[in-house]
Amino acid sequence: MSLKARILIDCNDDKGLVYKISKLFFDKDLNIEDNQEFVDVETNRFFMRTVISGKFDPEILESELLVALPNDANIKVIMPKRKKIVLMATKESHALGDILIRHQDDELDAEIVAVVANHNTLEELVRRFDIPFFHISADEMSREEHEGVIIDLLNEFEFDYVVLAKYMRILTPNFVTHFTGKIINIHHSFLPAFIGANPYKQAFHRGVKIIGATAHFVTNDLDEGPIISQDVIPVNHRFDWTDMQRAGRDVEKIVLSRALDLVLTDRVFVNGNKTIIF
Amino acid sequence: MSLKARILIDCNDDKGLVYKISKLFFDKDLNIEDNQEFVDVETNRFFMRTVISGKFDPEILESELLVALPNDANIKVIMPKRKKIVLMATKESHALGDILIRHQDDELDAEIVAVVANHNTLEELVRRFDIPFFHISADEMSREEHEGVIIDLLNEFEFDYVVLAKYMRILTPNFVTHFTGKIINIHHSFLPAFIGANPYKQAFHRGVKIIGATAHFVTNDLDEGPIISQDVIPVNHRFDWTDMQRAGRDVEKIVLSRALDLVLTDRVFVNGNKTIIF
Amino acid sequence: MSLKARILIDCNDDKGLVYKISKLFFDKDLNIEDNQEFVDVETNRFFMRTVISGKFDPEILESELLVALPNDANIKVIMPKRKKIVLMATKESHALGDILIRHQDDELDAEIVAVVANHNTLEELVRRFDIPFFHISADEMSREEHEGVIIDLLNEFEFDYVVLAKYMRILTPNFVTHFTGKIINIHHSFLPAFIGANPYKQAFHRGVKIIGATAHFVTNDLDEGPIISQDVIPVNHRFDWTDMQRAGRDVEKIVLSRALDLVLTDRVFVNGNKTIIF
Amino acid sequence: MSLKARILIDCNDDKGLVYKISKLFFDKDLNIEDNQEFVDVETNRFFMRTVISGKFDPEILESELLVALPNDANIKVIMPKRKKIVLMATKESHALGDILIRHQDDELDAEIVAVVANHNTLEELVRRFDIPFFHISADEMSREEHEGVIIDLLNEFEFDYVVLAKYMRILTPNFVTHFTGKIINIHHSFLPAFIGANPYKQAFHRGVKIIGATAHFVTNDLDEGPIISQDVIPVNHRFDWTDMQRAGRDVEKIVLSRALDLVLTDRVFVNGNKTIIF
Repeated sequence: MSLKARILIDCNDDKGLVYKISKLFFDKDLNIEDNQEFVDVETNRFFMRTVISGKFDPEILESELLVALPNDANIKVIMPKRKKIVLMATKESHALGDILIRHQDDELDAEIVAVVANHNTLEELVRRFDIPFFHISADEMSREEHEGVIIDLLNEFEFDYVVLAKYMRILTPNFVTHFTGKIINIHHSFLPAFIGANPYKQAFHRGVKIIGATAHFVTNDLDEGPIISQDVIPVNHRFDWTDMQRAGRDVEKIVLSRALDLVLTDRVFVNGNKTIIF
Repeated sequence: MSLKARILIDCNDDKGLVYKISKLFFDKDLNIEDNQEFVDVETNRFFMRTVISGKFDPEILESELLVALPNDANIKVIMPKRKKIVLMATKESHALGDILIRHQDDELDAEIVAVVANHNTLEELVRRFDIPFFHISADEMSREEHEGVIIDLLNEFEFDYVVLAKYMRILTPNFVTHFTGKIINIHHSFLPAFIGANPYKQAFHRGVKIIGATAHFVTNDLDEGPIISQDVIPVNHRFDWTDMQRAGRDVEKIVLSRALDLVLTDRVFVNGNKTIIF
Repeated sequence: MSLKARILIDCNDDKGLVYKISKLFFDKDLNIEDNQEFVDVETNRFFMRTVISGKFDPEILESELLVALPNDANIKVIMPKRKKIVLMATKESHALGDILIRHQDDELDAEIVAVVANHNTLEELVRRFDIPFFHISADEMSREEHEGVIIDLLNEFEFDYVVLAKYMRILTPNFVTHFTGKIINIHHSFLPAFIGANPYKQAFHRGVKIIGATAHFVTNDLDEGPIISQDVIPVNHRFDWTDMQRAGRDVEKIVLSRALDLVLTDRVFVNGNKTIIF
Repeated sequence: MSLKARILIDCNDDKGLVYKISKLFFDKDLNIEDNQEFVDVETNRFFMRTVISGKFDPEILESELLVALPNDANIKVIMPKRKKIVLMATKESHALGDILIRHQDDELDAEIVAVVANHNTLEELVRRFDIPFFHISADEMSREEHEGVIIDLLNEFEFDYVVLAKYMRILTPNFVTHFTGKIINIHHSFLPAFIGANPYKQAFHRGVKIIGATAHFVTNDLDEGPIISQDVIPVNHRFDWTDMQRAGRDVEKIVLSRALDLVLTDRVFVNGNKTIIF
């Protein structure tokens, strides 16, 4: 039976890498359906994403690649399957709603395992889509206690990514470390402009003529993780900060959904504090 | 009691129009909160949108403006109230879903009276939002018969606009004439490029590097009504036509929602086959 | 003889401003060709730019407006005439060259009085256009001495604006104060992201997916003056910082020329640290 | 001595192509500095652009690739050298001027052999840059005669590309056939919208909200050749057609220069009526 896999490889750059990898595919009579490579000159690192099809055993293929490639190589043979995601939100519905509609429409190659929110504002919306909603209020809890409850809840699920769809609380290093490389956030500004609280107010007071949004992996530096996707829209002096916020919502939701789609289709490599997107 | 109104005026351009209008507001002790004017040199036509506040009787104000201005003037004194809209759709959920989420979120200053579709694909989604859904199949009906049933249904409602949220059937002149100036459509191309069927296939075969979407009022020339809003995104040779279609959906929904917002806030004048947007 | 003027007014907002101004125009039988207004709610300030035509004496008109309007009003009656500009540059030719081509093409409504540079790299290019070029080297001079020589030179000319077309030295408060409100700069980033030295290197290391440029009036806060114009372009992981720089040059030159055009046509009001652009 | 080459290959897609090519490079101890591949599923055609470095003889390498690859393969081993271009123009200076400035700045990896124009308007500008200018008036000549003179002139030069920098005459099939695949044009609209004469007037009358420009290879279908690059800018009801034209010039020149840069760096494959851009 013919299978298909996405193969992600990164290792220190060296002569013959493409040759060794393509030889292995050729020897196994596999077809290369798509192939993209990149060498980061600064770190001398080679990145490759290949879609292959043919008859193969994924585990054997992975072990053969391990043998063929240098010791430092990261190799993933990813078989097509719906990834699982947890959404976290607060009160605003635009980013969450956009994902729910795509999910309902089967446009998103993911299963939404749960929505977790620190307010119950969005419960009604989420329930309309028959998706489990968990309201975990932060009232009368320390930040650590609150996150502890969320971590315990998340640990009950199996999931690939946590998507912060306008979750408006800052996460502690403990939380981030718990789910390293798995948390995607949408920041409501064109980072690194307007880091921190209320970027639209900051943008309004600075008098910018363009506003934007940034989807990124979350690391322990506030609004500083590897950027996956960004976009912008023009504004003018007729926009007060709530107008900017309103206009910005469209950018936020599109940028987050685009980043999510890239991640779900295994197109994103993290390279230090940057991303490589195939 | 202090009221607020949007005043829309258009008439042949003449000296003193701004003076006469602002004098009337000044004499009645009204405050001008926002004011935009435009003179279309080609047609010698004056357009003005003013937001006033103060104590006034809307009907008296309108009649006083009628007296003060030339005979050909169109004058609307619009008091703030939620407009009513009917949505028409077929099978795709992205444009419809975007409006439903905004509606649920109270971001849209409108009440959705009904959703009418020629397939039942979207029924489940619409019902999730407790909005009346009417499936009017076109099976075994002539185009005229099918539209007749829809017109009869729509006539039972009071509404301000019909929004074609990816309604994939061409409307007859009879239908359009029935709701002149009230029908807003989203066309899935950057008009006037790729008029007609399957614009994404056309775009793919032409090898364009950018695709777009166009929201416009519907007139009896196919895809030829006054344009309200347009936007685009880049594509490249890696996009087949379904990739373009998928990427295009985001543009379509944002452009339609933006146009709808402009119309609902009375910012759009139709000037022949063009629009003036304040 | 019929004249034309651009009239710029700003004052504290009050009822009847539009009425008083339009009455004056009406009483003098002047035609309003274009008119835009804006009220900044935050500062309660009214801004108006009107283009009038008819028979009038500019000085009398200005004094009549002074009488008709509140004491705090700034009133400018600007008769059409080519403004004069001085360009300052360092070594890069793209922003300067773009202005030179527009000037040669008579697209720019300005006379270039002189180009001043701290290197002689651009001398050949400037001389090709028969424009006076002054090389004022900063070698063996303190910043103050160097600027002193430039100020002395500039004081010999009459000019309306100093345009920093990639002048790569930081100006002292003394210089800026000398030409308050007259200096326009192009900053090679999407401000307020990447303030300071080598924004493209900063952008590269941050891994952004979009880069931009910002034209702004120069004040004594580094890269913090009122923004006139901004634009952006997408980049990706294949861009090293010199690729970003190269791609960015196109944005820089277009944004600067656009800002210059807005300023030369008297479309820009400065409102604190922001601009209003009609 | 270490050399560098750009290798362009296209052939019918087959298993093992990447393997065979990378094996050859590996056996010859060549380094792959950059590599991009694409398979056009519709035509089952494989495209590859590789930058290699090391010790090799270009002719031997090309012949070895010919042996290793299928008979239908097109193979180019391109050694770095400045390409030669001829510019053709009419009266407008913006596109031509942009190329001249880049050329002067050594930003463009090309030598401008000559500028040919059907008017003498641009002679002064071109001479400023010490580039040969040929005014070939079309007065009192048939289209064929006029083109005959130009073809005779061009045949005296060696060049890689003819760049139509707003050359406002339609070329005959004879001319196009003479320089097949070598002519690059900038069309002042977002093709395929507004094909033909005065696109800005067409755009104005259609009331579009966005205008654009398209750089493409010239074929014998008017404005129908493979598109290399496109871009757009927003316009609104305040733009008359000359305003659109003026705003559009910036897009035209940037799009043409970007396309020229892609062609000069051998990044463009023509695939039927489309391009593949690496």
